[in-house]
Amino acid sequence: MISKESVIRDLNAVRLQSPLVHNITNYVVMNITANALLAVGASPVMAHAAEEVEDMVKIASSLVINIGTLSKSWVDAMIKAGKAARERDIPVVFDPVGAGATAYRTKTSLQIIKECRPGVIRGNASEIMALVGDKGNTKGVDSMASSGSALQAAELLVKKTGAVVVISGPVDYIMDGQTVVEVKNGVPMMGRITGLGCTATALVGAFMAVDRDLLLASAHAMTVMGIAGELAAKRSDGPGTMQIHFLDALYKLSNEEITTYFNAK
Amino acid sequence: MISKESVIRDLNAVRLQSPLVHNITNYVVMNITANALLAVGASPVMAHAAEEVEDMVKIASSLVINIGTLSKSWVDAMIKAGKAARERDIPVVFDPVGAGATAYRTKTSLQIIKECRPGVIRGNASEIMALVGDKGNTKGVDSMASSGSALQAAELLVKKTGAVVVISGPVDYIMDGQTVVEVKNGVPMMGRITGLGCTATALVGAFMAVDRDLLLASAHAMTVMGIAGELAAKRSDGPGTMQIHFLDALYKLSNEEITTYFNAK
Amino acid sequence: MISKESVIRDLNAVRLQSPLVHNITNYVVMNITANALLAVGASPVMAHAAEEVEDMVKIASSLVINIGTLSKSWVDAMIKAGKAARERDIPVVFDPVGAGATAYRTKTSLQIIKECRPGVIRGNASEIMALVGDKGNTKGVDSMASSGSALQAAELLVKKTGAVVVISGPVDYIMDGQTVVEVKNGVPMMGRITGLGCTATALVGAFMAVDRDLLLASAHAMTVMGIAGELAAKRSDGPGTMQIHFLDALYKLSNEEITTYFNAK
Repeated sequence: MISKESVIRDLNAVRLQSPLVHNITNYVVMNITANALLAVGASPVMAHAAEEVEDMVKIASSLVINIGTLSKSWVDAMIKAGKAARERDIPVVFDPVGAGATAYRTKTSLQIIKECRPGVIRGNASEIMALVGDKGNTKGVDSMASSGSALQAAELLVKKTGAVVVISGPVDYIMDGQTVVEVKNGVPMMGRITGLGCTATALVGAFMAVDRDLLLASAHAMTVMGIAGELAAKRSDGPGTMQIHFLDALYKLSNEEITTYFNAK
Repeated sequence: MISKESVIRDLNAVRLQSPLVHNITNYVVMNITANALLAVGASPVMAHAAEEVEDMVKIASSLVINIGTLSKSWVDAMIKAGKAARERDIPVVFDPVGAGATAYRTKTSLQIIKECRPGVIRGNASEIMALVGDKGNTKGVDSMASSGSALQAAELLVKKTGAVVVISGPVDYIMDGQTVVEVKNGVPMMGRITGLGCTATALVGAFMAVDRDLLLASAHAMTVMGIAGELAAKRSDGPGTMQIHFLDALYKLSNEEITTYFNAK
Repeated sequence: MISKESVIRDLNAVRLQSPLVHNITNYVVMNITANALLAVGASPVMAHAAEEVEDMVKIASSLVINIGTLSKSWVDAMIKAGKAARERDIPVVFDPVGAGATAYRTKTSLQIIKECRPGVIRGNASEIMALVGDKGNTKGVDSMASSGSALQAAELLVKKTGAVVVISGPVDYIMDGQTVVEVKNGVPMMGRITGLGCTATALVGAFMAVDRDLLLASAHAMTVMGIAGELAAKRSDGPGTMQIHFLDALYKLSNEEITTYFNAK
């Protein structure tokens, strides 16, 4: 099970192995997710051309798919890369940004899940609910529902897909059909910084590259994310400075800090 | 008319209502404009696929169109979204980035204005001048002309389009054919941070979502922008730190700060 | 030859002339490279539509081509702009991001070099090695080889292309077939911030706009980059704060700081 020690072990593994994480993600968050991956010790690459996604994913240790600013050619590349990853047992994490906000996002999310069979799906409550046909009470890409209210939907999604499902929110829930891990780290200000949900997904990509227990890898990523957020909040004066201190905190995160702030079960 | 009280009222309305602002904007500024919208209290969404722009704009409270890194498929989506917005009386603000620098930008700007009939057009002096056929003395996306020198062009543009026109610069002019509001807040360093013009446009999007008096909404946005810039400059050591402190200032902006710094008439 | 005085002279020229630098670059770094160009005193513009790249490059003082997130339509625009630039003797710098990581990146890089004949090519060791057919030991977009190990490959690339070649790393090597300049400024933390390699290329774009001695212009850009990085590191607590202080340092860089930190030969 998750413990302070298991978080420390996997974070050190990311730092030592510096896994190549292939991202096909959205324009808004590319910079901060690349910086977060570098800060945590991984090696990010962003590539989306049909001509190269299969070659790129072959040399990567994990694949992150995120539909935040989707369009047809990008979705085609996501599916191409996702299939190539699955054929080679390279783990895939999927972020269904804005599922439920438009029919196109919901439909595309279901298509990606079907064709790429991601090992982990991470979303906010309304996105997870939209993926099982619930009216997800979304506001564009922001959820109006609490993470807890999506627990049933998440269980159903696990059953339908076989994926580990992560609902992020004030409490993050990570579940695989047998176990539900609750991660309570994090602060509300993280919701005022664009792309921190997407960054959480990218960190799952880093951790799944070094730990094939996808429930644990996801819980570790969410824990590291949340603790770095708490540490950053203490040094910040608002969402601008917090974004910057979050990257510093991620880079410097010590065993002692993990031990002190760890709050998962 | 604009007053300290009207600025405070609308800023509080943005914070309370947290309107969904749909942005079809450029790659360079997506991150900072999303962060600025979150900081001011709005809920940003970025979506540009032809398959979903109409669905997305329908659930939004305003639409921001910005051609900073335009290409054909994006312009098509802008027009599609803009038309859908107008049909539903969802207010539209348009930023003709780089109009005058290339024929393609000028032509596209005029096409968007014609087909989407934006309620507000915000640009720098050379962009506004280019839209009425003046040689705008542009340097790429930066204006070489002062905001005051574009007043005549702006008046003509108001007449031609019926839109509120905002010329931003050391003094911002906001006009609707009857009234000209001058906003004197802001500092020169804002010109050294990429995307703050585009951010001003996005903030107009947030304010027009809560106030259908588009002259006032635009003047409020420019005032809030300028005051946050002044506050950020005091805490900054250059354009890097200023970008960050600008977001903090926007987030924390108090009634007292607005009262102290307000400088519009 | 390069000297403290020549660096100071060219930096002041950039600040005085504020050259328009046309960038066709990647999504991840657009914001930070635009901010770095503004901070150093240049005027950046990003434009990639086939409809306008020729018009834009005609009014620019230099062109920066970067394939970090390449796709077919972007490559077509890069080549169109590159050819138009060469016809008008507007200097071009090319950044072959990730060459060697996928066949598509290597092939595209060679095509751009052939068709646009860039005056400067800047890459990390593995990218430079990949361009002459060496197995470059790349990890996505990061080099696993030291800059010194690519010296032979760089010499060959100079011979094949006639371009000035810049290998960046702990020591930057800048060579034109006759002279090799070594720039030793910089700190390892720069590798933990996404896009600083691309930013170096953009700064070469700014300096080549004011100095047609491309060996010197490139060495000046790498020196300014490295000194700003050293200054930023002193004020930073990790890669997040460092990115911000780097922009401030670039903006404020004084003759005294250049004199104190200059470390090239």
